[in-house]
This record gives sequence, C-alpha cells and structure tokens, in this order.
Amino acid sequence: MPVKKLTIQVVHGPNLNLLGSRETSVYGKATLASIDASLEKWAAKESVALNFFQSNHEGEIIDCLQRASKCDGILINPAALTHTSVGLRDALLAIAKPVVEVHLSNVFAREEFRHHSYISGIALGVVTGFGAQSYELGLVALASHLRGK
Amino acid sequence: MPVKKLTIQVVHGPNLNLLGSRETSVYGKATLASIDASLEKWAAKESVALNFFQSNHEGEIIDCLQRASKCDGILINPAALTHTSVGLRDALLAIAKPVVEVHLSNVFAREEFRHHSYISGIALGVVTGFGAQSYELGLVALASHLRGK
Amino acid sequence: MPVKKLTIQVVHGPNLNLLGSRETSVYGKATLASIDASLEKWAAKESVALNFFQSNHEGEIIDCLQRASKCDGILINPAALTHTSVGLRDALLAIAKPVVEVHLSNVFAREEFRHHSYISGIALGVVTGFGAQSYELGLVALASHLRGK
Amino acid sequence: MPVKKLTIQVVHGPNLNLLGSRETSVYGKATLASIDASLEKWAAKESVALNFFQSNHEGEIIDCLQRASKCDGILINPAALTHTSVGLRDALLAIAKPVVEVHLSNVFAREEFRHHSYISGIALGVVTGFGAQSYELGLVALASHLRGK
Amino acid sequence: MPVKKLTIQVVHGPNLNLLGSRETSVYGKATLASIDASLEKWAAKESVALNFFQSNHEGEIIDCLQRASKCDGILINPAALTHTSVGLRDALLAIAKPVVEVHLSNVFAREEFRHHSYISGIALGVVTGFGAQSYELGLVALASHLRGK
Amino acid sequence: MPVKKLTIQVVHGPNLNLLGSRETSVYGKATLASIDASLEKWAAKESVALNFFQSNHEGEIIDCLQRASKCDGILINPAALTHTSVGLRDALLAIAKPVVEVHLSNVFAREEFRHHSYISGIALGVVTGFGAQSYELGLVALASHLRGK
Amino acid sequence: MPVKKLTIQVVHGPNLNLLGSRETSVYGKATLASIDASLEKWAAKESVALNFFQSNHEGEIIDCLQRASKCDGILINPAALTHTSVGLRDALLAIAKPVVEVHLSNVFAREEFRHHSYISGIALGVVTGFGAQSYELGLVALASHLRGK
Amino acid sequence: MPVKKLTIQVVHGPNLNLLGSRETSVYGKATLASIDASLEKWAAKESVALNFFQSNHEGEIIDCLQRASKCDGILINPAALTHTSVGLRDALLAIAKPVVEVHLSNVFAREEFRHHSYISGIALGVVTGFGAQSYELGLVALASHLRGK
Amino acid sequence: MPVKKLTIQVVHGPNLNLLGSRETSVYGKATLASIDASLEKWAAKESVALNFFQSNHEGEIIDCLQRASKCDGILINPAALTHTSVGLRDALLAIAKPVVEVHLSNVFAREEFRHHSYISGIALGVVTGFGAQSYELGLVALASHLRGK
Amino acid sequence: MPVKKLTIQVVHGPNLNLLGSRETSVYGKATLASIDASLEKWAAKESVALNFFQSNHEGEIIDCLQRASKCDGILINPAALTHTSVGLRDALLAIAKPVVEVHLSNVFAREEFRHHSYISGIALGVVTGFGAQSYELGLVALASHLRGK
Amino acid sequence: MPVKKLTIQVVHGPNLNLLGSRETSVYGKATLASIDASLEKWAAKESVALNFFQSNHEGEIIDCLQRASKCDGILINPAALTHTSVGLRDALLAIAKPVVEVHLSNVFAREEFRHHSYISGIALGVVTGFGAQSYELGLVALASHLRGK
Amino acid sequence: MPVKKLTIQVVHGPNLNLLGSRETSVYGKATLASIDASLEKWAAKESVALNFFQSNHEGEIIDCLQRASKCDGILINPAALTHTSVGLRDALLAIAKPVVEVHLSNVFAREEFRHHSYISGIALGVVTGFGAQSYELGLVALASHLRGK
Repeated sequence: MPVKKLTIQVVHGPNLNLLGSRETSVYGKATLASIDASLEKWAAKESVALNFFQSNHEGEIIDCLQRASKCDGILINPAALTHTSVGLRDALLAIAKPVVEVHLSNVFAREEFRHHSYISGIALGVVTGFGAQSYELGLVALASHLRGK
Repeated sequence: MPVKKLTIQVVHGPNLNLLGSRETSVYGKATLASIDASLEKWAAKESVALNFFQSNHEGEIIDCLQRASKCDGILINPAALTHTSVGLRDALLAIAKPVVEVHLSNVFAREEFRHHSYISGIALGVVTGFGAQSYELGLVALASHLRGK
Repeated sequence: MPVKKLTIQVVHGPNLNLLGSRETSVYGKATLASIDASLEKWAAKESVALNFFQSNHEGEIIDCLQRASKCDGILINPAALTHTSVGLRDALLAIAKPVVEVHLSNVFAREEFRHHSYISGIALGVVTGFGAQSYELGLVALASHLRGK
Repeated sequence: MPVKKLTIQVVHGPNLNLLGSRETSVYGKATLASIDASLEKWAAKESVALNFFQSNHEGEIIDCLQRASKCDGILINPAALTHTSVGLRDALLAIAKPVVEVHLSNVFAREEFRHHSYISGIALGVVTGFGAQSYELGLVALASHLRGK
Repeated sequence: MPVKKLTIQVVHGPNLNLLGSRETSVYGKATLASIDASLEKWAAKESVALNFFQSNHEGEIIDCLQRASKCDGILINPAALTHTSVGLRDALLAIAKPVVEVHLSNVFAREEFRHHSYISGIALGVVTGFGAQSYELGLVALASHLRGK
Repeated sequence: MPVKKLTIQVVHGPNLNLLGSRETSVYGKATLASIDASLEKWAAKESVALNFFQSNHEGEIIDCLQRASKCDGILINPAALTHTSVGLRDALLAIAKPVVEVHLSNVFAREEFRHHSYISGIALGVVTGFGAQSYELGLVALASHLRGK
Repeated sequence: MPVKKLTIQVVHGPNLNLLGSRETSVYGKATLASIDASLEKWAAKESVALNFFQSNHEGEIIDCLQRASKCDGILINPAALTHTSVGLRDALLAIAKPVVEVHLSNVFAREEFRHHSYISGIALGVVTGFGAQSYELGLVALASHLRGK
Repeated sequence: MPVKKLTIQVVHGPNLNLLGSRETSVYGKATLASIDASLEKWAAKESVALNFFQSNHEGEIIDCLQRASKCDGILINPAALTHTSVGLRDALLAIAKPVVEVHLSNVFAREEFRHHSYISGIALGVVTGFGAQSYELGLVALASHLRGK
Repeated sequence: MPVKKLTIQVVHGPNLNLLGSRETSVYGKATLASIDASLEKWAAKESVALNFFQSNHEGEIIDCLQRASKCDGILINPAALTHTSVGLRDALLAIAKPVVEVHLSNVFAREEFRHHSYISGIALGVVTGFGAQSYELGLVALASHLRGK
Repeated sequence: MPVKKLTIQVVHGPNLNLLGSRETSVYGKATLASIDASLEKWAAKESVALNFFQSNHEGEIIDCLQRASKCDGILINPAALTHTSVGLRDALLAIAKPVVEVHLSNVFAREEFRHHSYISGIALGVVTGFGAQSYELGLVALASHLRGK
Repeated sequence: MPVKKLTIQVVHGPNLNLLGSRETSVYGKATLASIDASLEKWAAKESVALNFFQSNHEGEIIDCLQRASKCDGILINPAALTHTSVGLRDALLAIAKPVVEVHLSNVFAREEFRHHSYISGIALGVVTGFGAQSYELGLVALASHLRGK
Repeated sequence: MPVKKLTIQVVHGPNLNLLGSRETSVYGKATLASIDASLEKWAAKESVALNFFQSNHEGEIIDCLQRASKCDGILINPAALTHTSVGLRDALLAIAKPVVEVHLSNVFAREEFRHHSYISGIALGVVTGFGAQSYELGLVALASHLRGK
C-alpha cells in the first residue's frame, strides 16, 4: 500500500531568520536555510511535502496559518510568540490541525517568562532543547501521528 | 428635528475572518460578512454610517483606529488582542472616542487568561456571549450613547 | 405562526432600589421603577411577560429564583452579590434556566474586587456599562436566545 | 571510522510499569516492555547499549542513577516524580551526565501541577506528548548529542 | 438475596505505625492494630474482606496499590503523602477503583500546607477529624457505594 | 446505665431545599425530606433528638444557631455559605458547641473556590462526597463524640 | 450658640447580640444592651440622638442603612460582614453619610482574613481593639466630625 | 480613692514634625505642638504624665522606647515606620508595655502598601483617620486600659 | 584626534506617531517630527548619524532592528510594546547592540501593568518621565557609552 | 533676560560614600567626590547652586530633605532606601518639590527586589544605568523642568 | 559529677553518599566517611555515642527515625527532602526529640525552591553553609542543648 | 608555624542591647555583655581579635561596617534588620568580607516575615536557634573559613 502523501506547514516565528548569527551560544550555528534543507531532505524520502514560512509579524503568521488550513499538520517554532500570543493559539484552534511545537533552546533553563507557552496546551506534543534537531524530531512525530502510527 | 448622522468604526480582531467555519460550537455559524450585513441593515435605518475593518495584525488595527479618529465611536471585538495588547488600549486612549467592546463567546466561561481585558477598563461598556447579536446590541448601545440617549 | 409566549424573571440585587438617588455619577438618574416600566413596554410588544423582584437580602433573591424555576429565563443585575455570592450562583445552577447578567456601571473601570463575578461563568452572556440600557439589551438578548434566534 | 559505542541508562518512573493497562486514553496502549523492545531495536543498529530501570520508589531511582554514573547519558521519564522530586534533580546534578526528559502524555494539557518540572531546567531537552514515540525521539536526540552531531 | 462479597484494601501512610504513642493530643490513643481490629470486626459482619497495608515508603504503597487492582475499593489514610505525592495520585488513577480518603486529625485546623490534598480531587469522598472513627465511617461509605446503596 | 439523651441541631444551607430536583448528577436524587427522615430514624434508635432547619438566608441560619445554643452539637451542611460566610463561622464560635460539617458532593473535585471552607478549621471533623450518606456518617461521628466514645 | 442637634444611626452586625456571653476572652463581658446604654448616656449630654439596630441579616442591615439616609452619620461595627459584604459597602456609599467603623477586638491580632475590611476604605476612620470603649471613642469622633470640630 | 498616677510615652514617627505644613489635605492643619498641647491638657486633668518624642530616625525611636520601659504605656503614631519597621515592633515587644497605635489619616483609603502594619498585630488597639483627634482618643483608650476600666 | 563617527537607530513604538495630539496631559505637546528634529540637531554637532523609524507594528519594528544590526546602538521608546513584546527583546538580544530605553511619561506613576518592561533588563539604561527630553538625555547617554566616555 | 537662579539639593543614599572602591564592576570607578565635582562644574555654568548630602542613615536623609524645603528641586540617588523607605517617600511628598531619581547601575538587570521603588511613583522622572552620568542627565532634566523648558 | 552519656542519631539524606565526588564546587571535597569520622572523634571525647544512617529513600529515613526514638537527639542533613518531605517532618514530630538541621551548602544562595524547609520550623536550630563543619557545629549545639548548657 | 592573627568585627543589631531582660522565653537569659565576654574568651585563645558593635540604628551599623573594611570577617546578628535592610546587604557587599549571620532564636519557628533574610543569600553561612551559642558557633565557623580550614 503506498504511503499516504502528507502536506505539512512549517512555521518559524520572530527572529528565527537570524539563526546562525544570533546568540549562537543559545541557539546554535545552524541557519534557517540549513534547517529547512535538512527537513526537506527527510521529507522527500517520506512522501511529505513541506511548506515553509518565517515572519517577524504575528499577523503574518496568523494569515499563513489560516491559508494552511488544508495542510495535514503544523510544525511550529513560535519563538517569542510562544509566551505572548493568544492570537496564534486562536489561529491554531481555528484551523484545527495537529500541531507540534518545537524550540531550539531549552526554554525551561532560561528566563521564568519563557516557561509558559500559550501553544503547548493545545499541541499534540512539544520538543525542546535540541537545536536544529528539535525540528527534525518534531517532524518525525507529526508525520507518525498523521499516518496513525 | 432630524436625527444626528453618526459614523462608527467597526473593528474585528484576529481570526474573526474565519467566523462560520472556525470552532462553530464556540463562536456560532454566522460569517463575518453576514454579521457586517446585519449591522449595516440596522445602521441604514438609524442614520449611522459604518466602516468595517478586520485584520489579524495588531499593527493594522492600530493604524485603522488612528485613521478612524474622526468617527464618532468605535465598536470593537478585539478577539485575542483583548488579553494581550497594550498597543490597542493606547490607540483607543489616543483617539479618545467612546468604545464598546463586544465578544461572540462568553469569555468568562473559558480559559482563565480570557477573563482579563486590557480594553474593558477604558470602554464605555461590554457585551459578551450572545454570538453575532453581541455586535448588534453593542452598536445599539453605542449609538444611543452618542446621541445622548 | 404566532410568537412563542415567554416569561422572564427580572431580578435586581441589593441597593438597586435606591437608583436615581444613589451615586448618580456612577449609576445614572433612572429610577428602578422607570427601568422596569421601560422593560415592560418593550416586553408587552414582544409577547414577553416579566416578573420583577428586588431585594437587599441574598436569601430572598435565592427564594425568588427558586420560585422562578418555571420561567423561561432570568435577567439579573446581581449588584454587590455579583462578587460575593456563591449561593446565588448555586440557585441559578439549580434552576438551570438561561441567565443574562447585566450591570449599570462598567464594573471593569471600578475597584479591583468588582472585576470578578461568580455569575458570569454560568451565564449566557453579560452586558455591562450602559446604565438602564444594559437591562434592555440584556432582555433583547435573552428573548432572542429563548426563541432560538 | 567506527561509530563511538554509547551506553545509555533508560529510567521509567512510578506507575509506568502499568503502561498498556493504565488510563489508556491518556497514556496509550503500548506496554513498557514493548517500549523497551522498540528502543532496544533502534539502539542495536546504532551501537548504543541500553540499560533499563523502572521503579515506583524515588529512592531506588536515585540509587540507580548513582550506579549509572558511568553511562554516557540518561533518558528518563520521571512520571509523577517530575513535579515533586528534588532528590531526583540532585541525583542527576550529582552524576553530571546529559539528561533527556520524556513524557508520554502532553503534560501541558493536563492538571496545572503537571506543568512544572524539577528536571527540565537541568536537562538537555524535553520531548513530551507523543506516547511511546517520545522515548524514541528522546533517545535519538540524546545519542546525537553524545556523538557531537 | 445474599449480600455481595467485597474486598477492600486498607492503606495506612507514613508514620501511622506509631499511632497510640505519637502526638496523642493530635492523633488520639488508638493503635493501628486496634483500628484494624475494629475495622475487621465491622467488616466480618458485612461480608467485606479487608487487606491491610502500612508503610513509610511511598514506593511500597504504590506497589501495594498496583497489586490491589483486583480489590473493589481503596480506603486510604495517605498521611504525609496526602500533601506531596503525585505518585500516589497516579497509582490510584491507574487502578481506577473507588477511593475513600480518611484522616484522623482535622487537617483543616492544622498547618496551611496540610489543607491541600493531591488525593481528594480524585476520591469518592473524604472523612477527616474523627480519630479512629474516620476509618470506620469511611469504610461504611465505601462499602455502601460499592453495593450501590 | 441508660444512654445519655442528646439533642442535635441539623442545619441545611442555601438551595438544599431543592435536593432531588437540582443538578442530580452532582447532588444525587434524595430529597431533603428523605434525608431528614433517614436521620430521624437512626436518631430515634440512638436516643438522639434532632431539630431540623433549612434556609436560604445566612441571617436566619445564624439566628437558628444562636437559638440552638442549648443543643449538644451541630450537624451542618453550610452549602454555598461554606465558602463565603464569616458570620456563620462566628455564630458557631459563639455558641461553642461541637460542629460536624458535611457535604453531599466532593467539593474538592469541583471549582477551585469550593476548596476553601470558613467552617472546617473550627469543626470537629468533615465528611464530604457521599451524598445523603454524608449526613448519616456525620451524625454518627457527632453522637459518638458527644458520648465520649 | 446652641449645639447643633445630631442624629446618629448605630449599627451592630451579626452575632453582636450575643455579646457578654460569646467568647468573652475575645469580646469582653459587656452586653450589647450595656453598650447601647453607655452610648445613650454620653449622647444625651451631647445633644446627639441615637438610633440602634442589630441584625444577623446582611439584608436587614442594608435596609436599615437605607432608611437611615436622613441621619447625620453612621457608627457601625460590621462584625463578620466587615470582611465579606460588598452590599454593606454599597449601601454606605449610596447614603453617602460619614461612617465610623468600630471593632471590639483587635482584628489585626486575629485570623488573616479579618485583616481586610470592605468598609475601612470608605470610612472616615476606624477604632479597633478597645472592647465596648471602641464604640464610645468612635461616637465621639463621629460627633466631632459632624460638628466640624 | 485617689486616681492612680500614670506615665505615658507619646511617640511621633518620621515627618510628623512637619504637621501643619505638610500635605494638609491629607494630614490636617494641626501642628505637632498643638497636638501635644491638647494631649497635655487632657492628661493634666486625668493624672497622667506625658513624655513626648519625635524623630525621623528609626534608631532614635527604638532608643526612646527602650528608655521608656518604665512608663505605663505607649501611644505611638509610627507614620512611615508602620509599614516597614520590624525593629520598632521588636522594641515594643521587648519593653512589653500596652501600646496604642494611632494615625492621622485613614491609611486604608490610601496606597495599598499603607494597609499593612507591623505594629497593629501587637497593639492593644488602633485609632485611624480622625486627624489630631486620633491621638486624643487613643490616649483615652490607653489610660482606661491601664486603669483597668 | 577626530571624534569617532556613530550611527544610531532611533525607534518609536506604537502610537507615538500621534504625539502632540494624543493625550497631551500625559505625553506633552511635542510632535514626533519635532522630537526627531531636535535629536537631529544635537546629533549633527556630535558626529552622530541618526536613522529614525516609527511603526505601530511589532513585526516592522523587529524587521527594522534586524536591518539595524550595523548601527552602533539603539535608542528606543518601545511604548506599549515595552510591557508585552518578548519578540522585541529577542530582536535586541539578537543584534547585540547597546540599547537605551526611553519613555516620555513616568511609567511608574501610571497603571500597574506599565511598571514592568521586557526591555529594561537587557538595556544599558533607562530614562523615563521627562517628555521629549527623555530622548535627548538617552541619546547623550548612548553616545557617551559608545565613545567609552 | 537673565536665567533664573536655581538651588538644587543633591542627595546620595547609603553606601554611596564608598563609590570608586565598592563593587566597581557594578557601580563604576568614579568616586562620590568626582561625581559632585562634575555636577558642580555643569551647575556653575547654568546658574544652578547645588547642595550636596550623603548619609548612611535614613533619618538623616529625611532631616536633610526637610531642611531642603526651600530648594527648587531634589536630585536623589536613594540607593538601598529606594526599595525599603516609606519615610523617604513621605519626606519627599511633604516638601512637595520636583524630584528626579537616579541610579548608577541598571537596577532592572539586578535582583528582583531592586525592581520596585517607593520613590519612582512620586518622581518627575528616573534615570538609571549610566553610572556617574545618570546624575548629570538627571540634573539637566531637573533644571529644564524647573525653568519650564 | 560525670558527664551524662548521650546517644545521637546522625542522618544523611539523599545523594549525600556521593559527597566528595558530586559537585565539589557546591558541596566541598569531604567524603561522607570522613565527615562521620570527624564527628566520631569529637563525640568520643565528649561521651557522646553516634549512630550514623544514610539513605536515598525517604521511607528508610522515616523507618530509621522511628527506630531512633530512644536516642537523645537527632542531627540531620535532610538534603533534597528538606524541601519536599512532610513525612520526614511528621516522623520527627512523632519521636519528639530535639532536632538540629544542617546543610553543607548555603541553601539561601541557591535556587528559590531551596529556601523553604519543612524541617526548620520544628527544629531546635539550623546550621547552613559551612561544608562538613556544619555537622560539627550542629553536633556541638545539640549536645550542649541536651546537657542543658 | 604560628597561627595567623585574625580580626573579626562582631555586630549586634537593634534591640539586642536588651538581651537578658527582653522576652527571655524567646531570646534566653544571657546578656549581651556576657555573650561578648564569652566570645572574647574563646577568641583570646585562638589569636582572634574581636571588635564589638551594637546599635539600634541601621545607619550606624552601616557606618561601622564601612569602617570595618580592614577586618578579616564579619560576625553579625542583624536582628530586625535581617528582614528589612537592603542597606545592610549593600554595605556587606561593598566591603566584600566573609560574613556569618547568626540568630539567637529559630527565626523559622516564628512569624512568616522572619523567614526571609536579605543577608543570608550573600553570607558564607547561617547559624540560627541556639541562643548565645549561635554566636560562638558562628565565630568558630568564620575563623575556620578565614584560616582556610
């Protein structure tokens, strides 16, 4: 039986476009392009189509998520919006697709205000702290879930 | 004596463009277009001109409110921004027009973080929980207030 | 098809009998009698029978609500009891009728302790801040709800 | 160049021995044995030796961790101890090995007291919400980290 | 019709083995043996088989509860674990039997930290403050519940 | 030696007169009359005279308690007043009789505000969660205490 | 110039009718009648007419305060209502007369919940801790204030 | 029988030396000298010797209180130190004399941080809000207490 | 030795484009243009090049800051974003330039929620309360710092 | 027109006499004498007379401020007293002169308890984090304010 | 007169068996054996018999304390259990012997959750921060207390 | 090798001059003079020179600590200032000498506000609850530390 084709929207929140140059001791040296390329590589082998989106604007991310309502699932690193955006939570609730939340750094080892997420409570699951690999693991988990494995 | 002409800016916050499809058990089945149409119908009879605006971007809503500084009043459903946007509060304070805040769902019967509003404290009043009708009641109240009734 | 006949219990909480004389800058100049008369007028046209009750006694209001268990809905301004009465909440839960909560003043622009309501979480919706008109709007909303509009 | 041999201690906290029978709607239907087998299979291919340990006793888990001080890393689902055990945190600090924390259920979608972890702040990273797959992803992440990938 | 045979696991938490010698002004003079004997006496007449267990080890109590998964119900005085053990709560959730929580002393008249219980929220009911009689009343209540009275 | 004659005041708080019709999934199907009858039956056999009182008025309950100062003890289900009435606490302190607090539902499994009681800290003990049986167990405990058993 | 005639409403809150018998170590041995008599004696000499009212019912006290709206001032010991009654606060705000709050015991040396008063913030001043003399001092202060001394 | 001679230490806290010029809308127009004179006048008639002390230095006030250990009682307006000085509380505990705390303004109608006092909990009683008269009433109360009236 | 050339990015947050018309009692009468002109004048004399940016959009400000990563420092009045934007904080951390935070009004004399800033903790320093002059002083401080004075 | 002559009291709080030797990584290397000299130099050119005062004693600083009631304004670094002294706040309120609060270090980047100031809420403005320059900027701001610029 | 013979139970909490290897920058380089030896040496000279016990199991420590009920006093470093174990507190209350609590590191300079102890409030005294010497000083203090010095 | 000569400043906070007369049930019967004498005796034998200082003035203690900057260490019982003085903390930070904090009574068994210390977090260690012996043990610990033992 052929593997079900999946489409997954990958969303990168504010400031993630700076990856690789920004605070590399916290976020690592991978650039966003290299992360996307690595995800793409895995996805190609697994019959998963990926759409990528990055923005520093909460509104644009909400717009993107609304357009993504035909995808099978969402892989999102909400970055700073994790802690402040009810709008993002509402958009995810509205499109009602499985969501996996990922973080490059271990948010629980950082400032107190980074310990609370408006997204985690409505996500399928969360992967945090493994740098670029957080995305890869989150993608694997999301695809497995969507294929009912 | 002829009724005073009024212009009212109607503002819909993030994700309200999805109304009718999004979480209908919470928000009802009316679409934003149907809500606007229904308000328009009432307004036409009452010598009230309505300007409509929806955005998923906090910044665009602030821009809109600043442009609306010549309106007589503001009818706003701030949606997710209710709970997180000091910028919206500041814009409303800046233009110094009477504001009526409305919500489709009963925010007090939902998550704890939806019980606090940055807008209510500076509004004329609040209508919450009656679905599309919340807008209609809010508009009636705002028009009455503006006409000194 | 004739409009369904409705009976609605209107409840006024403590100190509302003083309306029109008490702190008029906060609560407006309408007396309770004039509010009731205005509601009655609207109701007569809409095939709605209204029962009115005011008391300064939490217990009497609970008694009244229990007797009202055959009404179709409750329109209530719980006044001070909003913030302190679990008994009122329990009575409303017990009779299990749709409840609309109204307030003359904008409670969110007043003392911190007036921002919490034991009633809102179990109400259909809330109208606050429009003076006597809060009642009228609440009544319209309640009747609409009861008629399934 | 041959892949570096790794030894990883896998620790399952209280009540995880009941997996597969206990609250399957929350924790899924996989048994602990099947989880361990699945990890073992992956590990064998990757030159990783796994030691497994489960206990309902905080003290035994601390003893186990102390004995494990020669392992290369720790993969732990602290279960209930996540939220209450400073002793577990201290043991992990004492042996000073990289730790990955995993959870079967999405703890952020459950009771408030499950949102805080004494372990996350000292872990390399956290994987939560993917059922048995949380372990697998955590193991992949830990092995990658230990091999400096 | 013969009365249904019931088996109930009775669990005594940490330090209850000292009853009769420990702080008798708080806990009374009954020993644990005398409490068990008195429960046994009542149970014999009521076709209830009782299994008794006491431990100062959280882990042993969890082990015991897991073994007790074939009992009809649990009568437990969690003692100090009441306020600190998520593991105990999880074990009780896992075996999914009706639980009655009892306390010798009135925990609400003691230190603030004794006012919160991790068990009460998942118990059938709670009896607190009546010394050894708390157990007896709790047993009566549990048996009644199990027999559907 | 003949058993000492006891007189116990039984007090039912607000909304308990609705028992059997109100929220039966929470409070059960027993009516207040049937609860009183069942208590009376037990009491008659045990040489205990019971006085019953129910009111939705905090003030009437305080009046009743003051009149009851010659009773030997108080069995009270304060219902909503549990969480809000310092006056009830003061009345109980004033008459200085042993008090047993009972609840039909398990208050600890309900809204957060029902977890605090102004009465528990000054009561002999508390029985909560066993429906009508909570009263019976509370009465047994109170009578035992008064007879020094 | 003759001294201005004053009328002052004296209000005693719940359970104060028990004074002299209730918890005499906290509240002293004076009865309410003796307190009133002593106030009356002072008042007669000072051209002050006193109206006395005691009730265990919040509603009756609110009723009384509303009737007292022609007095010159209010001397009130709100007792338990101090800490729980927004209705009392609202009644006092409504009649807008100078209020002096008194307490027999030193509320600040008692339970934490007695440290907050809904009345103090809207009172002229507060006298607490001097037994029956608190009333006398409060009356002196109120009369002085009313006479502009 | 001659009236017992009493010696009372009157203590004025920081900034009270400015009375009469400082924020007269809050503190009134009486100067500290006029307050002392008025107290002296009453005291002379009542066989009470008064010692006066004012300082802006916490340390000097503590020194003064230690020297005052032979007085019969302390009348103190701790002013700003009310809310911040454990040292003052300890000095009063150390000399173990009856203390009456007075305030010119109604501290409960001012900033939140003025609602807590380190002194009230160990005082005989408190008089607050009556301007200079607060001292006079406090002195009367203290003298009465010392004479066992 | 010639003075080092500096480039400083000046950022004005939401609603600051309304300066001079908006709430002039809080924010003063200077317009944003006049503030920029005044800064420009000072800067010209001091060999400082200024880039100005204002937006009501958090996202645009983040974009601007990212583009400004070649400036020597940032002078920012985050306005409403001060209290709500983790994204702004992250952008500033990412570009890792010295930041001076300024406010026109004294935020500490306003609503409680304006007392917390997500920016202050990562800024070089803060100037608040001096109207347009806050910018000028902040610029002086930033330039001094950048020149190592 | 000649520039108005101004007199400004400069106040340095506890431990600032150690500047230049104390924790130089936090407070910089300038001594208090050099700061005063630098302020003096600027003041001389601007027709401003400066009075300097430093003390480790809260009381002496209050005394100084009371004596300074004829100055035109206050420039104060309250140091540790910032966070603990209501007396200082009261003294500043009492003399009712414009106050500028300055800090050498960025208090918002230090311990949590340094984030709250009893002074900021009543100050004209605050300058924090620029070392000795904080004083200079604060002085410029204060002089501008006093000259109505 | 010969010195009274004393027996003291020394208890080391979880992870203290790793002393000397574990986080030596926090806990120092002394091993548990060397600490015990050093205590033994002092004890021998002072006619004090010491029993040593270390465990990573809360339950075993409670068992040990129960067995120790014939000792004269307890010297305990509860380690992680300090902050989480009500059971340990209850065991110490049960055996009712003087307790001295010691800590190697200065818990007040570490994570916030280490600032609270369930033991300190029922201990004779606490010694914290002096490494192995904390034990020695605590032993001296306990022996002195037991000998009434 | 001769023992290194040490100079230690001993500081006694407010009200400690009353030791021996003040609240002897809390603080014991030793006078300050006897404590100093006892410390002196030990110090003489150990080549330690002690300087003693007691004051009820926070400012004088800060002055003393600044003068003591040439001592080798500080032994301090901050008494009431423990809980309120940031100035004391700053002085100790400024002189940067090892500090040992001691308390006569067990502060953790007293009022809640005595559980927090501004000093502990920057001290070497703390000794609390052993009466006069707390000083002696603290001195031993400080001397050991200074000698690198």
